[in-house]
Amino acid sequence: MASGLVVQKFGGSSVADPERIRAVAEHIVRTRRQGHDVVVVVSAMGKTTDDLLRLAHDVSQAPPARELDMLLTSGERISMALLCMAIVELGEPAISFTGSQAGIVTDTTHGKAKIIEIRADRLREAIAAGNVVVVAGFQGVSTSSAITTLGRGGSDTTAVALAAALKADACEIYTDVSGVFTADPRVEPAARRLARVSYDEMLEMSATGGRVLALRSVEFARNHGVPVHVRSSFTWEPGTWVQDEEPSMEQAIISGVTHDTSEAKFTIEGVPDHPGIAARVFRSLAERSVNVDMIVQNVSTNDLADISFTAPKADLTEALGIIDALVVELQARGSRHDAAIGRVSLVGAGMKTHPGVAAKMFEVLAAEDINIEMISTSTIRVSCVVHEDNVERAVRALHAAFELAEV
Amino acid sequence: MASGLVVQKFGGSSVADPERIRAVAEHIVRTRRQGHDVVVVVSAMGKTTDDLLRLAHDVSQAPPARELDMLLTSGERISMALLCMAIVELGEPAISFTGSQAGIVTDTTHGKAKIIEIRADRLREAIAAGNVVVVAGFQGVSTSSAITTLGRGGSDTTAVALAAALKADACEIYTDVSGVFTADPRVEPAARRLARVSYDEMLEMSATGGRVLALRSVEFARNHGVPVHVRSSFTWEPGTWVQDEEPSMEQAIISGVTHDTSEAKFTIEGVPDHPGIAARVFRSLAERSVNVDMIVQNVSTNDLADISFTAPKADLTEALGIIDALVVELQARGSRHDAAIGRVSLVGAGMKTHPGVAAKMFEVLAAEDINIEMISTSTIRVSCVVHEDNVERAVRALHAAFELAEV
Repeated sequence: MASGLVVQKFGGSSVADPERIRAVAEHIVRTRRQGHDVVVVVSAMGKTTDDLLRLAHDVSQAPPARELDMLLTSGERISMALLCMAIVELGEPAISFTGSQAGIVTDTTHGKAKIIEIRADRLREAIAAGNVVVVAGFQGVSTSSAITTLGRGGSDTTAVALAAALKADACEIYTDVSGVFTADPRVEPAARRLARVSYDEMLEMSATGGRVLALRSVEFARNHGVPVHVRSSFTWEPGTWVQDEEPSMEQAIISGVTHDTSEAKFTIEGVPDHPGIAARVFRSLAERSVNVDMIVQNVSTNDLADISFTAPKADLTEALGIIDALVVELQARGSRHDAAIGRVSLVGAGMKTHPGVAAKMFEVLAAEDINIEMISTSTIRVSCVVHEDNVERAVRALHAAFELAEV
Repeated sequence: MASGLVVQKFGGSSVADPERIRAVAEHIVRTRRQGHDVVVVVSAMGKTTDDLLRLAHDVSQAPPARELDMLLTSGERISMALLCMAIVELGEPAISFTGSQAGIVTDTTHGKAKIIEIRADRLREAIAAGNVVVVAGFQGVSTSSAITTLGRGGSDTTAVALAAALKADACEIYTDVSGVFTADPRVEPAARRLARVSYDEMLEMSATGGRVLALRSVEFARNHGVPVHVRSSFTWEPGTWVQDEEPSMEQAIISGVTHDTSEAKFTIEGVPDHPGIAARVFRSLAERSVNVDMIVQNVSTNDLADISFTAPKADLTEALGIIDALVVELQARGSRHDAAIGRVSLVGAGMKTHPGVAAKMFEVLAAEDINIEMISTSTIRVSCVVHEDNVERAVRALHAAFELAEV
């Protein structure tokens, strides 16, 4: 990469202790001395956030969200100050900014605030003055001047948003894995690291179980055209670039297999099949914050339909209560649910121009004697819900059949 | 106390763990339900600040002051958020503010910033809305928008400054001792808790070894007429009021004996006795931040004078280097120093109208065969420097001779 502005984000495991912080500082200084301007986004050290949450629950059964945000944001304050000290120790000027000081303005939703605007003047001045700039990830200040946190994956979003606001040449996300793989290497040892994936592929992978990048940060990167480089802070080797599709290159049909076993499947059986019923069902679930993922409605027979959906197992009790009420209200025949399911997905931008991927996927699973319980598709993804016990076998069979281990 | 606004400050030992935080929250809620508006100032939990300092020195030999302030201020952020949660848990609304959010504006001296102004509008609004307001002690925001700390005793200063800005009826300083005593109870078991002391007496006591209140906070309280109540967060019993002298009451001649063994004594011998020499000596020391305390210059003989002073043992090496240079520059005869000294002081507002206190003090020490190495006085204090080994014996002898155990 030619010299320019690079945003580097380091997750909690990358700065877990003083030794790791010094290693990260050395990498930052190396980047700086290669001629780049560097903006660093840092998460809280290791398990700090968990420790703070435990303290909160020691003093309160239901900690107020505003105070929880005040508490949790101390974690990044510690790591960013220490990281600056380590950088200065190596001879490069460095200066830290809280989310608020960095001008990261959010809405007022404590615990999962959305970034509304970045007023980056102070950062630009600090960069122009020759500093490495270190910004607290995961946090901002609301339009009513309260401290907010961005929720899960918030530090990735901070990094990408800053890269967009500062028109950075790249956003490097350093983590404890070395990139995006064709499958989870713990399940499929032959899984191969991808040199690049498109934003759309990464979105589908993040949404279906790939845990490398938070969905929100990928959306943000796509919407603002920020090239993201996912790589390891332990090996420092080049990882995976997430960027626009390159139409000039021949695309792989399939980029990867993802899987997810965090959801349960719910079915409302024998629902009168007339307009507005599905809306009624999913409005009820949304109002109680049940996070519905896949939705499938069967062809109706005798004017009765089955509506199936998946939602996080964490929402199981909540969802069952709502479903019981809906069965009565809609005069449905009944309901059933199954927590022992998993989802296996094939993701690939080349799917758009190669028909037959879904058919081949079903054949591969059939050959393995794996029953498919639900199917959903997008233009670049096919997902199948199968029994939980079959998930890992399905991943390996699909990885082999689509020859993902080969370049 | 009639209902009104009270500022309550809790030190690190008062909020050392979740159990202590819950006990403090109960006390605050009790105060609130007695009809008071309550503003709370809180320090970092227990040894948090020490732990953070250790981390800083793990990554840096000389941590930059700005980043050290950023790091250390995370401590109060944690304790104040937890305290708010515990208060809300007990059914009273509570809301926390960082020093910056509380409008505590300081100068730009990181590590020992001075409060310039308090813009308390947000606090006033939060109080008017019925909240218990919890503010981070020890911190502010500089005129150039950087996070600053107020240095040693900073949380006491925050509390008194807020009490002044909000025109509070009282400022309660909760600590791990139950008030101000006639001597350090660890040295003199017969020491008695004082019901009240004047600002001037408290200033002299804080300056000469009484560790209950930071000097700066007492100065601030005196300058703004804030009544301060020093008391225990472990027994919750009434402690000592620090306030204006009450001319109507008969004053005790002596309020207490203090002692301090943190300083060393330095002497420059045989300095030519002409104008400007003392200025030259103490300017040199001040420029290198050696914190000179007592100064004594002997009557000159043969146009030569001895200049003696005390300064913290922590500054010993620095001071000796400066003195060596001064001896050459001023053509003095030589120098000597003694780190094995201590200072014993008698403090009492009644001294102003009762001559003979100093004489009696010297007699008591003489009767104990304790040699006096230096003497300094103010209108309400007499201090003697003695050998370190004699300090505790001197405290006990003076406490008995001036009958301080009796009311």
